[in-house]
Amino acid sequence: MQFDFENLPEKDRYRLLCSFVAPRPIALVTTCNKDGLANAAPMSFFNVFAQDPPIVILGIQMRSDGSEKDTTANIRNNSEFVINLCDLAIAQQMVDCGHPFDEGVDEIAITGLTHKKSLKISPPWIAEAPAAMECRVAQIIEYPRRLIILGEVVQMHVRDECLDPEGYYVRPDVYQPIARLHSDNYIVADNQFVLTESFNIKGQV
Amino acid sequence: MQFDFENLPEKDRYRLLCSFVAPRPIALVTTCNKDGLANAAPMSFFNVFAQDPPIVILGIQMRSDGSEKDTTANIRNNSEFVINLCDLAIAQQMVDCGHPFDEGVDEIAITGLTHKKSLKISPPWIAEAPAAMECRVAQIIEYPRRLIILGEVVQMHVRDECLDPEGYYVRPDVYQPIARLHSDNYIVADNQFVLTESFNIKGQV
Repeated sequence: MQFDFENLPEKDRYRLLCSFVAPRPIALVTTCNKDGLANAAPMSFFNVFAQDPPIVILGIQMRSDGSEKDTTANIRNNSEFVINLCDLAIAQQMVDCGHPFDEGVDEIAITGLTHKKSLKISPPWIAEAPAAMECRVAQIIEYPRRLIILGEVVQMHVRDECLDPEGYYVRPDVYQPIARLHSDNYIVADNQFVLTESFNIKGQV
Repeated sequence: MQFDFENLPEKDRYRLLCSFVAPRPIALVTTCNKDGLANAAPMSFFNVFAQDPPIVILGIQMRSDGSEKDTTANIRNNSEFVINLCDLAIAQQMVDCGHPFDEGVDEIAITGLTHKKSLKISPPWIAEAPAAMECRVAQIIEYPRRLIILGEVVQMHVRDECLDPEGYYVRPDVYQPIARLHSDNYIVADNQFVLTESFNIKGQV
């Protein structure tokens, strides 16, 4: 089936992109407003893109009325955000943080999660997250209905049990992140398998 | 455990980012060189970021000697690339395409995949891919050792069986993409579950 993206309604582009570019990693993004009140919102238009500098990117849409979401307004205000990574233990809270609460409602508290003071920036990280990255804005690319925000990771928190005793390699039996697919569908990385280059190809070169 | 990213060697930043920002969707990127020869390479520093315009982003590292990969050189040459999405049926070929073949080797052909002529751009898409997106470069952000490439999707190919009979909703029993975690670890989206906002939270607002 063919879809001409230059002549397709926006909602159909959105549906197709979200359905097929998947599974997407999930950032539960915490920010602070001008009064220092915390906000948390889940995003799956998110990934890592570089390690030198360490760059992560978020794509944040406007609300349907064209106004900016709290997360966007907060990031514009102080250029700081935390990306909390998500496993099954906080999946329900992550989804609940996506509810359109009024401005000033602390999604971290109302969903039963716990604030942890960040080391380098003002927004808190979430104590129950298996890992969290404190970020400062590196660049913002503005489209009419969506902001693409490049953040530089300045500090990372990792739960001890997620790494081997040397604090080096991730333990796939412990760190099992969830990811987003189309609609309200998710998967959890509880059944990882290893794939390496096949012998035949290696033999040819 | 704490990691100060402003004072951490690059390889440790890379290891931590790849270990925890996961599972990452996989783009098998096809491009053409100046002579029209096709190239294919897998990337997991990749995601969708907007639908209006429809923007996908790739993060492509330099080779260890500082030179640009074939994919990067080809994209600089004609500003075109195809993102082929990956399921288990082409997982081994996707991994094999990551082998450092000599320039001019067609990874699509050598791994047993099949060229399909694109409708709007010169690089071919891969017939065995469940879905593919023809893209034109929207913007390139240059870091010393990595390029971040924003592409606008101009055409999308979807295998008929991946959508319902109306060509509208994705069928999760048919389209089961794979995703990348740390090292050579992968998962497949064969066990999707649904998560929605919890009743308690809805009741409070």
